[in-house]
Amino acid sequence: MFPHRLAVAGETVVEVTGRVTLTSRAPGGVELTEAELTTIAEPSARPPFDLHRPTVTAGLPSILDNAAYALRHPLLRRRFEVAAASVAGFRRTLDGLGFTEVHTPKLVATATESGANVFALDYFGRPAYLAQSPQLFKQALVGVFERVYEVGPVFRAEPHDTARHLAQYTSLDAELGFIRDHRDVMAVLREVVAGMAAAVAPLAEVPDVPGEIPAVDFLAAQALLAEHTGEDPRGEPDLAPAHERWLSDWARREHGSDFLFVTGYPMAKRPFYTQPSPSTPDRSNSFDLLFRGLELVTGGQRRHRHAEYLAVLGQEAANHADYLAAFAHGLPPHGGFAIGLERWTARLLGLANIREATLFPRDLHRLRP
Amino acid sequence: MFPHRLAVAGETVVEVTGRVTLTSRAPGGVELTEAELTTIAEPSARPPFDLHRPTVTAGLPSILDNAAYALRHPLLRRRFEVAAASVAGFRRTLDGLGFTEVHTPKLVATATESGANVFALDYFGRPAYLAQSPQLFKQALVGVFERVYEVGPVFRAEPHDTARHLAQYTSLDAELGFIRDHRDVMAVLREVVAGMAAAVAPLAEVPDVPGEIPAVDFLAAQALLAEHTGEDPRGEPDLAPAHERWLSDWARREHGSDFLFVTGYPMAKRPFYTQPSPSTPDRSNSFDLLFRGLELVTGGQRRHRHAEYLAVLGQEAANHADYLAAFAHGLPPHGGFAIGLERWTARLLGLANIREATLFPRDLHRLRP
Repeated sequence: MFPHRLAVAGETVVEVTGRVTLTSRAPGGVELTEAELTTIAEPSARPPFDLHRPTVTAGLPSILDNAAYALRHPLLRRRFEVAAASVAGFRRTLDGLGFTEVHTPKLVATATESGANVFALDYFGRPAYLAQSPQLFKQALVGVFERVYEVGPVFRAEPHDTARHLAQYTSLDAELGFIRDHRDVMAVLREVVAGMAAAVAPLAEVPDVPGEIPAVDFLAAQALLAEHTGEDPRGEPDLAPAHERWLSDWARREHGSDFLFVTGYPMAKRPFYTQPSPSTPDRSNSFDLLFRGLELVTGGQRRHRHAEYLAVLGQEAANHADYLAAFAHGLPPHGGFAIGLERWTARLLGLANIREATLFPRDLHRLRP
Repeated sequence: MFPHRLAVAGETVVEVTGRVTLTSRAPGGVELTEAELTTIAEPSARPPFDLHRPTVTAGLPSILDNAAYALRHPLLRRRFEVAAASVAGFRRTLDGLGFTEVHTPKLVATATESGANVFALDYFGRPAYLAQSPQLFKQALVGVFERVYEVGPVFRAEPHDTARHLAQYTSLDAELGFIRDHRDVMAVLREVVAGMAAAVAPLAEVPDVPGEIPAVDFLAAQALLAEHTGEDPRGEPDLAPAHERWLSDWARREHGSDFLFVTGYPMAKRPFYTQPSPSTPDRSNSFDLLFRGLELVTGGQRRHRHAEYLAVLGQEAANHADYLAAFAHGLPPHGGFAIGLERWTARLLGLANIREATLFPRDLHRLRP
């Protein structure tokens, strides 16, 4: 296009003035002639790897170490345009369903759900913790707004160095009141996932979201695994990652769906606020949503009676006095869910490691850049 | 409406079935007859104060201590519906201007802007800090997306117990590249504030946002103060809160505007990344936006040349190596701003204390509920 090859280093910031002519023969659809080029800012360091090729061939550690540079590659940047569109779809769907957006504290006096895996800090001379989720706040706010959502960071002092765990991730949380049971929550979640997929559709290939996402009961899922795989997980209180992958493949084969609800997890492995199933109290009105082999969402109905919380928490109740106050003043039956944004983006785009769907990941080994 | 007064305690959760008839004589526009009432959940504690009166007469500490209950009052709830609408207006405006939403780390290895007022924590055995702002990340991401915004929590270990400081607040951050100077940033900010006001308009009375918000240079502002008030602040490097209030009143009187830009603050009181004014290098291409007497927004043009950062940071540069890498690989001239959501809501609704515009405030003395 230019009359001669320009001696400008990669990543130089330039201003170009010239004549722009529409032409279908040009790669970008326009031709630039009589161009004058002014340098605005010059790089002062050699690039750690090339960005002008179709893909970035550097390894993941090098990409992450040089994120501010690497993310400039269109393929890497695109992941986060997909993430932004997904969040916009999440909000748009819930706005349309009468939800109110809230912003809750990330600094808390009591570890949210358990004492494990929390970051502790000094808060003006007192101990404080980083919130592992907005769970307790969003439940209390059902009593205020009836339906709420929050998009924000959550923190896990996660000692596992895996491809699917981060020390900080973006949680898409929703909670709604006046439900019959967890199935009302699943119906809202289906709308949300469909809204996220629709928002991403202009940018990337997206899965079909069935009008009704197939659901399998936890015990039925274990029976399927026992029948069709070499293993017999019956009696286990949870599904292993390999089991989630097999069940996802099964849903794909049997129902043509990239999504599968597993419902009725044993109470033993669910947090204390989980509502037990009325007919089988050792199992819960909770669910996971599997997406292409990975647990993408956890949700369910919560307990809403103050006396039940006092009973299940026992002596622990004193540590949750603020939380329990919301129930002491009356809360309707309610439930909700939390979607991990980075997991969603990674599975949607087929990225093997969740760090590839995070701008500046934080994990056991990484606190920078 | 009901045939007899119901013996139901306040905050009882009830299900009502009956016949609904439209009637203009009824206070809510509908009349309910043949009502059957089922109790879904009963409160188990006496309410700390009444919610059925037109206003909540309890004092602020009592309201904050009992937030999950107090926020159920329509007047208190409304504040956060206004906040949610404001954030929606912020995003909608920037989405329309080609900005991309991002989510950046809140756990950082180096205190963002200064060593003061940061919360420190133990990060898998290493020191880490809670981010005071997304400043350094959003600048780096201008090199990726050109225009970015983030809505998220920021943390200040603020030892001052005032009506306008919080330890955690919600920051509405934006940053854009390829600007001429800070005036391009001010033009975007004007659109954003107008978009926020428009989004709130159905819920509350909102100020007119002038097509061009009046702006006064820092030295001219000091001259005004010297001429019209009993004080002479000339030579001071910053404006005192009382000066900001006087200037806001002046803008209201002289320009009919609730908003006033003050530009050209001395470099001495601005952070290291602030771009100096080309003509008077001891003053900056930065601005504050005053709204009804309070500093609502700080913003400006940033330095974009790597060599300048090395010069101004000196030995400190080593602590900011990750940040500086973005500049080493070339960044366009850029700038941005940060709006404090709670300050906006408080000023908009005439709330005297920022805690009244925060669901569950965190401050020097308060880490709960």
